[in-house]
Order: sequence, then C-alpha cells, then structure tokens
Amino acid sequence: MYFASDNGGPVPPQVLDRLATANAGHADAYGADALSQEVTARLRALFEAPEAEVFLVATGTAANVLALSTLCQPFQTVFCSPQAHIHMDECNAPEFFTGGAKLTLVPGSDRMSPDALRATILGEETRGVHGPQRGPVSLTQVTEYGNVYGLDDLRALTAVASEFGLPVHLDGARFANACVALGCTPAEMTWKAGVDVAVFGGTKNGLMGVEAVIFFDPAKAAAFGYRRKRGAQLFSKHRYLAAQMAAYLQDDLWRDLAERANARCAELVDGLKGIAEPRNDARANMLFAAMPRAVHKRLLAGGAQYHLWGDSLDGDGPDEMLTARLVCDWSLDPAAVKAFVDLARAG
Amino acid sequence: MYFASDNGGPVPPQVLDRLATANAGHADAYGADALSQEVTARLRALFEAPEAEVFLVATGTAANVLALSTLCQPFQTVFCSPQAHIHMDECNAPEFFTGGAKLTLVPGSDRMSPDALRATILGEETRGVHGPQRGPVSLTQVTEYGNVYGLDDLRALTAVASEFGLPVHLDGARFANACVALGCTPAEMTWKAGVDVAVFGGTKNGLMGVEAVIFFDPAKAAAFGYRRKRGAQLFSKHRYLAAQMAAYLQDDLWRDLAERANARCAELVDGLKGIAEPRNDARANMLFAAMPRAVHKRLLAGGAQYHLWGDSLDGDGPDEMLTARLVCDWSLDPAAVKAFVDLARAG
Amino acid sequence: MYFASDNGGPVPPQVLDRLATANAGHADAYGADALSQEVTARLRALFEAPEAEVFLVATGTAANVLALSTLCQPFQTVFCSPQAHIHMDECNAPEFFTGGAKLTLVPGSDRMSPDALRATILGEETRGVHGPQRGPVSLTQVTEYGNVYGLDDLRALTAVASEFGLPVHLDGARFANACVALGCTPAEMTWKAGVDVAVFGGTKNGLMGVEAVIFFDPAKAAAFGYRRKRGAQLFSKHRYLAAQMAAYLQDDLWRDLAERANARCAELVDGLKGIAEPRNDARANMLFAAMPRAVHKRLLAGGAQYHLWGDSLDGDGPDEMLTARLVCDWSLDPAAVKAFVDLARAG
Amino acid sequence: MYFASDNGGPVPPQVLDRLATANAGHADAYGADALSQEVTARLRALFEAPEAEVFLVATGTAANVLALSTLCQPFQTVFCSPQAHIHMDECNAPEFFTGGAKLTLVPGSDRMSPDALRATILGEETRGVHGPQRGPVSLTQVTEYGNVYGLDDLRALTAVASEFGLPVHLDGARFANACVALGCTPAEMTWKAGVDVAVFGGTKNGLMGVEAVIFFDPAKAAAFGYRRKRGAQLFSKHRYLAAQMAAYLQDDLWRDLAERANARCAELVDGLKGIAEPRNDARANMLFAAMPRAVHKRLLAGGAQYHLWGDSLDGDGPDEMLTARLVCDWSLDPAAVKAFVDLARAG
Repeated sequence: MYFASDNGGPVPPQVLDRLATANAGHADAYGADALSQEVTARLRALFEAPEAEVFLVATGTAANVLALSTLCQPFQTVFCSPQAHIHMDECNAPEFFTGGAKLTLVPGSDRMSPDALRATILGEETRGVHGPQRGPVSLTQVTEYGNVYGLDDLRALTAVASEFGLPVHLDGARFANACVALGCTPAEMTWKAGVDVAVFGGTKNGLMGVEAVIFFDPAKAAAFGYRRKRGAQLFSKHRYLAAQMAAYLQDDLWRDLAERANARCAELVDGLKGIAEPRNDARANMLFAAMPRAVHKRLLAGGAQYHLWGDSLDGDGPDEMLTARLVCDWSLDPAAVKAFVDLARAG
Repeated sequence: MYFASDNGGPVPPQVLDRLATANAGHADAYGADALSQEVTARLRALFEAPEAEVFLVATGTAANVLALSTLCQPFQTVFCSPQAHIHMDECNAPEFFTGGAKLTLVPGSDRMSPDALRATILGEETRGVHGPQRGPVSLTQVTEYGNVYGLDDLRALTAVASEFGLPVHLDGARFANACVALGCTPAEMTWKAGVDVAVFGGTKNGLMGVEAVIFFDPAKAAAFGYRRKRGAQLFSKHRYLAAQMAAYLQDDLWRDLAERANARCAELVDGLKGIAEPRNDARANMLFAAMPRAVHKRLLAGGAQYHLWGDSLDGDGPDEMLTARLVCDWSLDPAAVKAFVDLARAG
Repeated sequence: MYFASDNGGPVPPQVLDRLATANAGHADAYGADALSQEVTARLRALFEAPEAEVFLVATGTAANVLALSTLCQPFQTVFCSPQAHIHMDECNAPEFFTGGAKLTLVPGSDRMSPDALRATILGEETRGVHGPQRGPVSLTQVTEYGNVYGLDDLRALTAVASEFGLPVHLDGARFANACVALGCTPAEMTWKAGVDVAVFGGTKNGLMGVEAVIFFDPAKAAAFGYRRKRGAQLFSKHRYLAAQMAAYLQDDLWRDLAERANARCAELVDGLKGIAEPRNDARANMLFAAMPRAVHKRLLAGGAQYHLWGDSLDGDGPDEMLTARLVCDWSLDPAAVKAFVDLARAG
Repeated sequence: MYFASDNGGPVPPQVLDRLATANAGHADAYGADALSQEVTARLRALFEAPEAEVFLVATGTAANVLALSTLCQPFQTVFCSPQAHIHMDECNAPEFFTGGAKLTLVPGSDRMSPDALRATILGEETRGVHGPQRGPVSLTQVTEYGNVYGLDDLRALTAVASEFGLPVHLDGARFANACVALGCTPAEMTWKAGVDVAVFGGTKNGLMGVEAVIFFDPAKAAAFGYRRKRGAQLFSKHRYLAAQMAAYLQDDLWRDLAERANARCAELVDGLKGIAEPRNDARANMLFAAMPRAVHKRLLAGGAQYHLWGDSLDGDGPDEMLTARLVCDWSLDPAAVKAFVDLARAG
C-alpha cells in the first residue's frame, strides 16, 4: 500500500533489459554513440517535430532549470504557480541556474488561470529597469496537486504568454500521465498548444532517472549544450540514459506505464467514494482526498504509506477531515489499492 | 511642488563644503585615509556600538544586497514583505548577490506582522532539502508605503527571527526619517531592538550617494569586505564617500534634514485634511493619499510633480478616488507645500 | 582496440545484477532507502572513517564542483594544475557552482610540485581585498596525463596547504587506478595523507554513472546536501545510484576492475617498448606515448581507436613522433592489447 | 612626493564647481535629468559615434565587469593578459558579474601580442562542449605596467579577435593618459581601431568616481541597463555622476589633466636618467624603474610615497636593483617631482 510517491516504485523489466542490451562493447562517450542518436530521432518522431533539439538529463530538477536558464535572462522573472515544483521543491535551483532570475507567483491555485497570468504579467511592468523584467511562463502538467490542464486551458495560457512575447516552458515530470488523462498526443499537449520547451519526464513513470528536454524551436536551444555540461549533467556514459529512454519509447511503454498508474488512481477514487472527499480532479495518477482523522489513523496503522498534505495526524477530533496525498505509480498492484480501500472502509 | 521622490532634491551646502575640505592633497585610497577612519569611529559612537563593523557603499541597493549576501547562503530564502524594495525595485540584485537565494514574501501589508512572519517561517520547513532553507529576515524602516514600525513592532519581529535563529537585516534607506518619527536613537532602532545588520541611508536624506552598512556583531561581517570589492562597490577615492558621511554626522545634520522632510509631510497631512484620505500613517516623509481625480488633474496641470500609486489619471469619473504618493525631501520649501495644498483646495 | 576513453566500456555484470536486485518493490526516495544507508556505512568502513559524511552523485563534474563549492567562498581561488579536469574540461562548472570563484593555475606539469604550489599561494597574497583570496587546493589522482602521485608526494602537497590553512580536495575520477598503482588503501591515499574531501570515482572504472564524495571532517560537509539538491544532483530514485556503488564495493570489485585496467596498460607499455617513447609514468591505466606518424597511420587505419594528444596526423614526415593518449578500461580484452601491439610493430 | 597611486590626488576645482552648479533644485532621478542627457550627447560627440550607447557608473571595476557581462556568456572565457586588472585586482568580480565565465590568460607581458592572442584562442578549441567557449578579448590601455599600445598594435589585436568573431573590450581606466601619449582622438583609439566597448575612465584622472561605458554597437548594449541596475550601480541621484563627467568633458579638461600627469612622468624619466633603469615605456603617467636599494631607502626615508613592485626593501645589498612603481596624477606638483629626483641623486 505504497502511495507516498511515484519515485518509490521499481523500473519495469523492459528498462533493465534495454540496459543489458546496451551494455555490449565500447561506445563513444557524451552522447556520440549510436543509441543516443537513435533516441533523438525517435523523440522527434513521437513529438512530430523533426527540427526539435532534444537533450537527455538525469533529474527533473536538471531538466527544468537547464531549460529555464536558456529561456531566461538573469534580470528577468519566471511566471509560475505558487505550488510549482520549481518554486517549492528545487531548493533555489532555478535561481541558481538562471544566474539569479526571480520567480513571480501567479496567484490562485496550482492550475493557473489565464486571467491571473495576464494580470500578473501586467503587474510586472511599471518600473522601468527597477523591477525584474518579464521572462518565461512555466506551466506544470500534471500540476503538483494532481490536476490536469485541458488542451484548451493550455492554449489559453500560452496565448497570454504570446501576447507579451514570452516563451513557455512545460514541466512535464508527469507528462505521460497527463497525455493519458487527456487522450492526446505529445504534440497536441506541447507545440500544437503553444509550448516552446517541454520536459518529457521518465523518472516518475518508470525509469531510473532520465528526462528529455525538447526545444521545438532549435534556435532557442543554442546554449543548452553548454549549460548542460557546465551544469554537470552531461553524462559521459550517455548510452545508459539513452537505453532507458529507448525502452520507454519502445511500443509506447511510456503510455502503457502511465495508463496503469492512472487506472490505479481511478480505482482509488471509485473505491473511496462516500468516505473521502476529493480535493483535486484526480484524472492522472494522484488523488488528494480528505478523510476523517480516524480513517487516516487506521490506514497508517495498517501499513499504508502516504503523506498528509498540510495537515497533522496529531490532535483530537476523529472526525476532522485531513487531506491525504495518494500517488499511484505504474507498479502499484491493484490488490494494494483494494486493500487500501477496504481498510479505509473497515471502520 | 516636487513630491516625486526624495532622490530628486539637491544636497545641503554642508555636504559640498565637506567635499571641498576633504579635497586637499593626496590621500590613501580604498578607505585607508584618515577621514574614512574617523567616520567609522563616529558611526560607532552614534550607534553606541564600539565593536561594530562599518562599511560605506554608494547606493541603497548595494547596501542591502551586500549585507544580505553576507547573512544568507545561496540555498536559503530571505523573508521580506511583498512591498520590500529588495523584492520590487532592485531588478533581482538580491538574487544575484546572494548567488541565487530566494525571497519569500510574508503575506500582508508593507508593515509585516509578527504572526504572519512566524507562520511564513514555519511554512518553509516541511520538505527537508527540497525547499529553500530559512534565511535572514529583512525589514524596511520606513516601509515602502511610508509607514513606520514602532520600537515594539521591531522587537516583536526580531523576537520571531530569534525563535528560529535567523539574523535580521534592516533596510534603512529612510532610517533618519524613521528615527525622527519615533523620537528614538539609532541604537534603539537597531541593535537594542534585535537588528543584526542595519543600513544607515544617506542618499534619500541629502547625500549624493552614500549608505553605511553596520554589522553589530563583527563576526558576521567577515566576508563583507571581499564581497564589497567583488561587488564593484569599493571606492578607490573613498574619501569622497567619507566626506559626505562626515558632513551627515556633523552636528546631527542627518537628524536635522529628516526633521525638515518629516515636517513638510506633516504640513501636507494637515493641509489636505478633508480633501484627501490618507492611506498610510505618514509619520515620516511620505504621504499616500487618495484624492478625487479632478483634484489630481488640477494639481498635475498646475505643475505639481508626483506619482499616482497603482491608479491611472485617465478615465471618467472626476470624483473617483486615486492614490497619490507624495514624498517630501529635506529641501522642499514650505511654500511649495502650501502652494500644493492651496491648489488642491482650489476646486 | 578501443583506447579512446575509459568512459567507453560497458559495466561489469555485477552492476547489472545489483541493479536488478535493487529493483524490487517500493523504496523511499532521495536516499532514505535502506540500500543507500548501507552504502554509506560501507564507504565509511572502506575509508576507515566512521565519522565521514558520504554523498553520491552521478557525474564526475558534479562531484568535483559540489565538493569545491562547499570548501570555497566565491571571492576565493582554487589552486590546481594547468591540466586539471576542473580547469580544462568542465566548461566553467567550478566557476558556476562556487558562485564565481577563480582557478589559479600552479605552473608546471600535471603533477604539481610542492614548491610551485607554495610559490603560487604566496603569490596570491599581496593585495588585500583586491586579488582573489586563497582557497582550496585541488589535486587530481591519477592526473589528467596519467601520472600517479606517490603517497609522499601527496603528503608534501597537503602539508603546503596546511601551512596556509587551506583545505584539500582530491579529484579521484581514477581513484581506484591510483590505489592499485600505489598498492595502498583508500585511507592512506586520502585523510591519512591530508586530504579533506575526496571523490571516489566509479564511472570511469565500470559504473554507469556514480561518484562518491567523502568529507572526512563532517563539519565541512554541512552545506553539501543543500548544494547537491540545488545543483540538481539529488536523485529521487537514489537506490539505483546506491546499487551501483554497492556492487562496486562488494568483494572489492572496484579494486579488481582497476587491476584489470592497469594490467592492460602495463601490457601496452611492455609491448610497445622500443617503438614508442612513454611520455608519462603509465603506472595506472593511461599511457601517453610518442610514436612515429607512420605507426599511427597504420594503427588508425587498422581500426585502433584513440586520440592524438595535441598533435595532428596530417602532415608529412612519417618519422615525426606524435603522442597518443591510450586509455585502458577494465573491460579491455588482453587480445585487443596484443592486436594493437602487433599492429604497431607490423611496419 | 606622492607617487603611490593616481587614486590618491584631489579633484580639480572644475569638478567641485560643476557639482555645485548641478546642485540646484530638484532633478529627476536615475539618469532622467537634463544634465545626464547632455553628457550622453557630449560623449557621443567626443567619440564621433552618434549611435553609441553610453552609461555612467562609479567604479572602474563596475565599468569593466558590467561591460564584460553583456559581451560574455557564462560558459565562455575572456582573453586577457596575465597582468590585467580584471584578473589581478577585482577579487573575482568578472567571474561574479558574468555568472561564472573564466578568464584565460594570454601568455606574455602586460602588452599582449597578436600572435600570442591567436595561439591562445586557437588553444581553446579542441574539446567541444568540454572546455570554456571562446568569448571576448579584453585589452587594457594604458596597461597595468604603464605601457601604451600603439594604434597599430590595437588594430592588430582587434583583427585577431575579428578572425574568430569575438568582441573586444577596452579597459580604459587610464584612457586619457593613453590618448595623450599617442596624440590621437578617442575615436581613433576605440571604434576606429576595432574596439566594441570602451571604458572611458575618469576616476584615476581627476574625478571622484565616474567611468563611462561606451558601446559603439547599440545592439550589444541591450542588456546593460538591466545589468547595471541589478549590479547595484544605477545611481538614483545620477546628476552627480553626470556633473563630474560634464566637467571632465568641458574644454577638454580630461585631456588637460592627462597632459599634466604624463608631463610629470616624463620629467621623472628625464630626471632619473643614469640612476634608474626604466622597466616600461613610461609614455603615459607611470614609470616602473629599477634603482639601487640604497636609493630607495633614501627616498622612502625622505618621505617619498610609492610602492616597490614585487621586490622587498629588506635585505642586504645596497646596490641591488629594486623596481619602483611611480604613478603621477594630474595634481602632482612639478616641485615634488624635482624634489624626488634630487633626493634620488643625493647619494
């Protein structure tokens, strides 16, 4: 009953197999090997973007901050939601990699509204050189609270960025989960919706640690290679990043894994009906749900693993509603979901 | 009728005279001259802090960000108000000089409340290495909206910082105006109130461009000298900074200048009673006041110089209340205040 | 006949096996898993340093620059050899991660002499705050030119650093190869020789991408965890770094792999006697050797893979001596060495 | 007998007078005042560059590093001489302001040779993304050792930069002294000789603290305004920088002051003939001269103020030749030069 994170599960056998296959003989270093080249071609094909520049890195933070650093001058500010991973959970990595750019929080929830975005951008423009200058817009899909932007939502947001000539970055740590939730293609969720640079995350969806950064306008990517090296993210034995990504792309494994994770989440939503109040849309692989303290105590005592979100188990009031963050990864056993639901209902 | 800024006025004759006096013969560079040494001693005396480390720089931004950079690790965050100059008006200089630290905004108004500060600090501590780590608290006295913290307010805020072992920086671009408003000593408003590093601003109060950064705990100042040099703020002809500060300290000129500016502001408050609604406490040298659009049109057409604050002169509705930011500097002629008031009332 | 790099070979089966074993069920993220804890304990044991702080990262550049950034203030300079990897091959990553520290090159060859080090350190101290301040000494073992410092050499160099109170960093991308060449323990080559922070490299010696950074004085490590996160090098699925390192430590695999690589290099030295002039000591796994242009042409035409070092194959003069950089990795087949030697001698 | 620095002298009365004149009434802040606009126009006229972008800052370090930061990406390297001020005397400010760029030293003396420059640039290009990328060339005129590049020298150096498409920065802390030594115009020494960005220094030549940064190609200046603000060098009371520069430009005061300083240096060269061996060309305002230890002892005991250059007064050997760095500023009394010479010859 592991719902603590989608970083906690194992990798599927295809990944280990592909690593083993890639492990034959000598291969040129730093991405000059054949497999790395092949992966680039396959990512271009998947995104229907033959001109795109593609880079692999090993952590989601690296993918985000290297991408932003190529889009953002140090005297600019990045527009993001108050719950964005780049703001909350990267220990100032965006400020570091951009050379000191600021993050301006667009008020509202994790799912940014076009009006709030426009108002915030307008708000950053009355002081000449004094305030931070307007920089990229960063969106997160799936959001940190497990919500999914519809394609219309994305297009409306990128249209606002366009009004001001600002580039758009998409933090896609859970890219596949969103694609599956929307039933759309990667192209539809990115460049066709106005995204300039997307992170196609693999780590939370079954890889050991690989993210692809995809620049749909190659001109914007000019500095990325240097910044990746200087950012200590150019892997000498690049074939092992490429092998993971190759497995991920093979027979749409990325989609298959995300379907599993999302399906578990849907089972959770169904199973908890009546006992839990959903706090997010839960269309992808995360359910934020409020349940009575007594239920949480029973679940956690019974071995369920998950985090409370801004609430504390301590305190009286067995009926007080506390919010759980329940994350499903591809490897989660349907039986574990059922056991969790049964335990929740056992009161 | 110049109320646009306290950066707009001339310097008093004492400053020019002291520059002329200091301009004799050769003097050692980089602060090794006798006058610079003397100014250090006098600042220590003024602040009743014989152990304090004292540094002169030429801009308020330099004073703030060099001070913060010695108090703050790059993986930490600075707690400040949403209206703080370091956040709004320094074009990411704090992020730059600290090597990428973040600024965390304490919700509320320009005058931070201890409860909001505590809640915000507590909010930055549930994610291990993931979020930014807690760093210094930065207070602004006088605030950007022209309000003055009482000594009790300051003590309550620094007490919160102390609970968490965080150092406190005081942005004192209008330090003298606040001291005069409170009728207190520099020591009472700084180290006696729990401030670790204070900026004793001169530029807005009659100098060409000098601010003193004062570390009450010399151990905290160890890196400042290097950071000042590396930050391009160590003046070779340091005597000309020292001369300005010497004039400022002589016969409490700093206090005299601030008394003038504050008195003009008080006259403005009095004069506008009934016609304007104050939006701040206006105890120092700035009045934020709402007046009908028609009044603004008359004033601005009549030659008054000031900025509207977040409002626009355009639009219909002569009775709509628009907020003016009226800043008085030491050099403002009482007759100009009277003329302004008369014009405002001329409708 | 692959001698182009020790980044080119595969990983040994033990590494793949250990990854597979580690790939069971859910595990806590970010290093909180049991295997990561176990690896820390085993590294402490291997280095006979029960108090040491140990961190895993994925690239050699990350290991070096994160280590240096914790030892070095941004207004200081790092003393290193002109051939150091941190100077030549990290695209300014040290400058970036330290926040702008300088690298001061100690004149001489890749193998720094204590006298040159002392003279260089002394040279950085006559200008007060004006010049960069003295910071850490960085040594590379094995050096970039394939030479090995003796333990006496290391002790003499760290003694110089000690004279000035400067910490010592050891870039150990080829740590194991040096240990094997010297027949010494990891402790003897590090803290017993005066090293403060060592990088225990795995990537060039058979891992996919893992380096351990070891702080022998835990007080010096306080900021590393935050800097690793902010540097985008904290792996969520940390168990896969740990698994590689666990395999590396099991039954001294690290030593076994290095013995193989060094043995191949020794065979190369022997085999090329008379035809090649060694340019380095070649005690570890790299031979720099001058051979006539005609020999190079034959080798490269015959399928050998390696780089010329500062020389060009173009040009006349079949007898002109050009220097090859021949790197042996653990996986190199003795038959490949023999084939190379035979081809070299075939003229 | 003050020859320690050209930062030690007073400012000429014209500067104080112009400050007093500028000190009337209110003026808009941050460079929007009329005098600042006028100074821009006059600098454009002086440099025969009507399109140039002109910025004032207060220190030479600020001028250099802000200029370089607009020309240089953080993954690039600046080519400069080993004696360059930016390398030796700015405490890593260039590394800081550029976000971590490197400085690559062109071997040779303070006066860079075109061949050495070309060879060094070529040397930085065999490692793809691994090494620092080629960035701007920085020249110093007058050099740190008091030598003057001829116009042919400058053109030859900028031609090398052009071969590689690299921009050229001129550190002109002693710009006026060089112009006078060469008998050329500012335009001839800058854009007509291939310089892209020049620092027109005022501080060492009689101002309190003002340097003009001049971009001959306005497209290259786009980010400078933001970088100046973020670098804490945008002066609110900008009129006092402008006033100093206005005085400097009036009736070619800058040239007059430099003529005086250079004349004093020439008198020194003449006066010391036979007793001192010049170590530099001494065409500007600095003489590096070797004299016997006994002569130094007599001079310093007699009240002369200057620095030995890399030598120590201690030690035996009254005849040992030690090098003095003798700097003449505009205010130096010819009688002081005569007194110095007489004292040197008094043995």
